Amino acid sequence: MIPVSHDTTIRVRYADTDQMQIVYNGKYFEYFEVGRTELMRARGLTYSAFEESGTRLPLVEAHCRFHVPARYDDLLIIRSAVREIPRSTMRVDYDLRRECDGILIATGYTTHAFLDIASLRPIRPPALFLDTLWPNR
Amino acid sequence: MIPVSHDTTIRVRYADTDQMQIVYNGKYFEYFEVGRTELMRARGLTYSAFEESGTRLPLVEAHCRFHVPARYDDLLIIRSAVREIPRSTMRVDYDLRRECDGILIATGYTTHAFLDIASLRPIRPPALFLDTLWPNR
Amino acid sequence: MIPVSHDTTIRVRYADTDQMQIVYNGKYFEYFEVGRTELMRARGLTYSAFEESGTRLPLVEAHCRFHVPARYDDLLIIRSAVREIPRSTMRVDYDLRRECDGILIATGYTTHAFLDIASLRPIRPPALFLDTLWPNR
Amino acid sequence: MIPVSHDTTIRVRYADTDQMQIVYNGKYFEYFEVGRTELMRARGLTYSAFEESGTRLPLVEAHCRFHVPARYDDLLIIRSAVREIPRSTMRVDYDLRRECDGILIATGYTTHAFLDIASLRPIRPPALFLDTLWPNR
Repeated sequence: MIPVSHDTTIRVRYADTDQMQIVYNGKYFEYFEVGRTELMRARGLTYSAFEESGTRLPLVEAHCRFHVPARYDDLLIIRSAVREIPRSTMRVDYDLRRECDGILIATGYTTHAFLDIASLRPIRPPALFLDTLWPNR
Repeated sequence: MIPVSHDTTIRVRYADTDQMQIVYNGKYFEYFEVGRTELMRARGLTYSAFEESGTRLPLVEAHCRFHVPARYDDLLIIRSAVREIPRSTMRVDYDLRRECDGILIATGYTTHAFLDIASLRPIRPPALFLDTLWPNR
Repeated sequence: MIPVSHDTTIRVRYADTDQMQIVYNGKYFEYFEVGRTELMRARGLTYSAFEESGTRLPLVEAHCRFHVPARYDDLLIIRSAVREIPRSTMRVDYDLRRECDGILIATGYTTHAFLDIASLRPIRPPALFLDTLWPNR
Repeated sequence: MIPVSHDTTIRVRYADTDQMQIVYNGKYFEYFEVGRTELMRARGLTYSAFEESGTRLPLVEAHCRFHVPARYDDLLIIRSAVREIPRSTMRVDYDLRRECDGILIATGYTTHAFLDIASLRPIRPPALFLDTLWPNR
């Protein structure tokens, strides 16, 4: 099985900075969100469509290691990767690099449950999800 | 009819600042939200309870004038006031002052529609709302 | 004199939504920031470079009118325009439209002072600024 | 040596929620910030005063485990604890509980470097910091 990986680019906003003149720590988790959203879109399943099918992907864990501060107006490349086919939970790994020089800004991961909205219970990954992301698993 | 007014206090977080070393402009609208939430709670109707009754108060307009920048760790007093009994929309006025010296930081207002969640249509202010906020109107 | 105008596109993030399932009101002012940043970049002056020249553009006023709610994953076109050459302050007007159907989501403006960082005093718009944005004024 | 621990209370804002009707994951790191700020204040050293002495505490790592979702208007108790006297870095542990029933909402930690602002280099924890937080170490 080939890991699913995708690169997307974001621009740091003024709103993302704090008075230390670097990106505020909590903002990186928003960047991770953009990364996994675009990974799903690139594989043919928007997170919107996935939600409409009745499932949510709430976080059970989040982690970030801050290597070099990102700064205002930096262009960042977020690489998001799912390295193992999810069973009960899904882990997504991220690394953020500065576009201009490739410097590693941050690494992290998020772990997600599959939640059925009707029953509010955790479920196995739906077929729609697995078939779209890993058609040849 | 006596205007409904309420003071509440918030502390500026590091996350609220930007690299200009002042509070980011968009954050003031969160402070306004805290102000009107606490105004409603002080009058005996939490916004949660109000939502559960089937109505929402989405914004139709928001305005802020920034007088003196608020800074990290400032304690701010938000005065929220409803000066006229709402008919189709409700206007809430705010002023923010620094607690330590009373300096005026910002003034603004938000205008809200009353939205019925079942029909997704604007409605007149519900009796629950008017009776709690203006019992002697 | 021809007004300076620019269109840029943003995607609504999950983080931008609130439990009313629409974009939180304070977020629109971040979208406005993206709009004016990209307007300046398109004219050849990044806001970073402008800050390095010793001037800041703090807000003195902000206004937004919410027409139709923006929702998760919407692609929005922000049109930012400066309609008059700034003298002591600069006003930027915005309108946000949904990319898929052109529906008007929000309109607003921000007014900015020109602040000299060395003296912390308001100044006239620097030549660097005027010459780049209005070379033929 | 007795660990330094402190409880502080925050109220979940509407702005903190997302369309899953729970607090957005990145927001928990803001709550952690409030926790460690108030821990320092309770020990007699505001983070502002600490910054003025020329040191910053940027994050090198952040982690959160989400147990039960926090919701709009929840009152949360953040317990922040430093369990070991910092040497080169400082780790702060957090747990968040719902005030009404003590339910565990989230646990996490942040790890911080001590950064000298003049040299932009990591330093040992300053005496001001250690003496205030651990006067009898």
